[in-house]
Amino acid sequence: MTNDIFGEFLGTAILVLLGNGVVAGVVLPKTKNNNAGWIVITAGWAFAVLIAAYISGNMSPAHLNPAVSFAFALKGDISWATFGGYVIAQMLGAMLGTTLVWIMHKPHYDVCEDKAGILATFSTGPAIRNSATNLISEILGTFVLVLGILSFGFYDMPGGLGIICVAFLVWGIGLSLGGTSGYAINPARDLGPRIMHAILPMKNKGDSDWGYSWIPVVGPMLGAALAVLIFGMF
Amino acid sequence: MTNDIFGEFLGTAILVLLGNGVVAGVVLPKTKNNNAGWIVITAGWAFAVLIAAYISGNMSPAHLNPAVSFAFALKGDISWATFGGYVIAQMLGAMLGTTLVWIMHKPHYDVCEDKAGILATFSTGPAIRNSATNLISEILGTFVLVLGILSFGFYDMPGGLGIICVAFLVWGIGLSLGGTSGYAINPARDLGPRIMHAILPMKNKGDSDWGYSWIPVVGPMLGAALAVLIFGMF
Amino acid sequence: MTNDIFGEFLGTAILVLLGNGVVAGVVLPKTKNNNAGWIVITAGWAFAVLIAAYISGNMSPAHLNPAVSFAFALKGDISWATFGGYVIAQMLGAMLGTTLVWIMHKPHYDVCEDKAGILATFSTGPAIRNSATNLISEILGTFVLVLGILSFGFYDMPGGLGIICVAFLVWGIGLSLGGTSGYAINPARDLGPRIMHAILPMKNKGDSDWGYSWIPVVGPMLGAALAVLIFGMF
Amino acid sequence: MTNDIFGEFLGTAILVLLGNGVVAGVVLPKTKNNNAGWIVITAGWAFAVLIAAYISGNMSPAHLNPAVSFAFALKGDISWATFGGYVIAQMLGAMLGTTLVWIMHKPHYDVCEDKAGILATFSTGPAIRNSATNLISEILGTFVLVLGILSFGFYDMPGGLGIICVAFLVWGIGLSLGGTSGYAINPARDLGPRIMHAILPMKNKGDSDWGYSWIPVVGPMLGAALAVLIFGMF
Repeated sequence: MTNDIFGEFLGTAILVLLGNGVVAGVVLPKTKNNNAGWIVITAGWAFAVLIAAYISGNMSPAHLNPAVSFAFALKGDISWATFGGYVIAQMLGAMLGTTLVWIMHKPHYDVCEDKAGILATFSTGPAIRNSATNLISEILGTFVLVLGILSFGFYDMPGGLGIICVAFLVWGIGLSLGGTSGYAINPARDLGPRIMHAILPMKNKGDSDWGYSWIPVVGPMLGAALAVLIFGMF
Repeated sequence: MTNDIFGEFLGTAILVLLGNGVVAGVVLPKTKNNNAGWIVITAGWAFAVLIAAYISGNMSPAHLNPAVSFAFALKGDISWATFGGYVIAQMLGAMLGTTLVWIMHKPHYDVCEDKAGILATFSTGPAIRNSATNLISEILGTFVLVLGILSFGFYDMPGGLGIICVAFLVWGIGLSLGGTSGYAINPARDLGPRIMHAILPMKNKGDSDWGYSWIPVVGPMLGAALAVLIFGMF
Repeated sequence: MTNDIFGEFLGTAILVLLGNGVVAGVVLPKTKNNNAGWIVITAGWAFAVLIAAYISGNMSPAHLNPAVSFAFALKGDISWATFGGYVIAQMLGAMLGTTLVWIMHKPHYDVCEDKAGILATFSTGPAIRNSATNLISEILGTFVLVLGILSFGFYDMPGGLGIICVAFLVWGIGLSLGGTSGYAINPARDLGPRIMHAILPMKNKGDSDWGYSWIPVVGPMLGAALAVLIFGMF
Repeated sequence: MTNDIFGEFLGTAILVLLGNGVVAGVVLPKTKNNNAGWIVITAGWAFAVLIAAYISGNMSPAHLNPAVSFAFALKGDISWATFGGYVIAQMLGAMLGTTLVWIMHKPHYDVCEDKAGILATFSTGPAIRNSATNLISEILGTFVLVLGILSFGFYDMPGGLGIICVAFLVWGIGLSLGGTSGYAINPARDLGPRIMHAILPMKNKGDSDWGYSWIPVVGPMLGAALAVLIFGMF
């Protein structure tokens, strides 16, 4: 295993530990941040990206997201073999991260009777189920994410500032485009935890909503491709 | 079409997609961020400016706002022909951005019965209708916006930092001066979506409040002119 | 009038326009940000400092606060004559800023029947009236403010970054030390608007609470002196 | 007493003044920020770190946390004698800081009848009491904290930016990992105030929950050691 593969694994684990951590805190009963609101969820995910990117950025390009790796593969910046390795590392990292959230919140899962809420601490789901608009939401969110990341490269920023900008980018996408489909905008962040939801034992576990699971995978890939296309035009 | 015109178009489209996106999320029923509060609205618009400015800033000066272009034309930094081109691009961008919000939130518009709320996801409206104080609110908000933007130019900042400052400027204006008229502070952001509100089909659409529509156009232009005047004094 | 005096006047006017603007929005009825919470109040004041400091920083040292000017006079960085000029400019600026808030929110003042709430949109007041602990609150808040400002000078930051740090400093003081006395931490911000509260006509105006008015003046001056003393020790 | 010892003392005093200050404001009755929510608590602690680090950073390495000092001692960056001195300074600083919070909020403590709430303004406690998961929560939170701090060192940032990153790191940990055990992630921040809770007179004081007190001490130390171990691997 090379250093960058380990970086993608560790970074995505930390991303999902923090990201699903804030969702678990807000959704599960009897936590200190129960029902703390959308600003807490979106800020939590933004700083999750910031922290995970700083830590993994010493070892890897810190994509932490198959859709981002897909964009750089389409642009020719990384090979498809590297893309494949990153995606596997990101998936495994997301599965580890969400498992840590589950361990840490075990007593709260035990007293939670809301099956949809439990699934929400693993994977995203639609506010109103509609394949077309849910898919469009994921495409638009990831389009803005990838176009933003590609554009930041043009600016001459000190090392730390670029990562703060990416965090604010993710915060903005969550605030503005997250209300309809929960802004997965990252196939590993959604599919990895969904697999763990199916595997891990929980008292009031419902089904893992596999019928929806393709949308937070396909949508982000399409959004990333669209961003590369538009970015190439100028 | 030159690169900078395209930049103003794309940037304003992203600005309004994200900006009206957060309003739609907070106002429309059954979203995940329904009723999420003023901190969410104002943070959403702030990061919308940040993201749109980064993306378009590679191609254009990233005014994304006819009032800002007006200020630079008054100062002599851009020609009036350029001003005209930018305003058209900004208007078209705003119309595209708000249309994307409408597509993405279609099932939520379908279940929304609040006509004033639906209009609010397109254009601003007064908290208490009063032409004098509503106009003054838009003048003051845009005055602070443009004076801030002009002043930032004096500082020697790394590339990315200036845009973060503009985002915080917009966040501050929204928090502090947005409660009376909804801080359009941008004629394209208000008029473009209002036109789309009149055009797009919606189940519970009310009127587009054209009687108010001049205030978020004239107020920002006056505020921008006042800022250029004060700025020229020192 | 020299440039720096004008800078202190204009900067403090913008500081109080934005700072009392967010309080007016949260406190007065029928605004869009009515009852929006402590995070909105404290973020609003933080960005008010950021914006006012950027704009006035081109002309003056951007103290915008007699307690800060007092600290620099005690340290010998400015003369006492300059201190006097700054304080007068800051007082007049604060009076202008709060008057603009009053004009802009006129219809909301007209429908507000809460006399204490109206006063709160001008000046601070105690959560529980207790001269000793209210004074200590203002001393501690201003002590942290001035010690922070003096310490930032040690860091080699790009132009814009230092002002962001001051904004975060003010945000932190508001969040953590503002709940007991409303963190005036600035005599001009409190006394100037209190004078205007006494002067301006309002339907449901109560008294201006002059009995409390010395605390947000004396407390900040003592806190600033204490900070200079501690800072001089190391 | 050397300069760095004084820096750790003063910095931790300011950290806990601001950090427990925001908890006191949110928890105690009749404050202006009573019940202001998780975003206020976590932002307050984040800016507390920022402010305390800037002020003490002129004199000391600004660890302000025995777990952070432990990590640097394990890495060999500071001697164990220095570690011992820092821990004593940090403990005394935390005791001073929480005492200032108590003085400033005296009238609010007097009217507070919630014994668990009063203890919460000094030290952390579990949302659901479970030694295993509470300990894991403190280990994970401190692991991310220390791994983040160690990683930031790789980036070439202007002076002020690194401290902003640490503040965002702490904000993120609070939002995402704080809901189960209250994220002490700092033995001095928890044990010092707990001692003062036992000592200071209060009308409705309950017991100091000494049975739990080892978790916010041992957990952070284990988390720091784990971070040094993982960090050493790459």
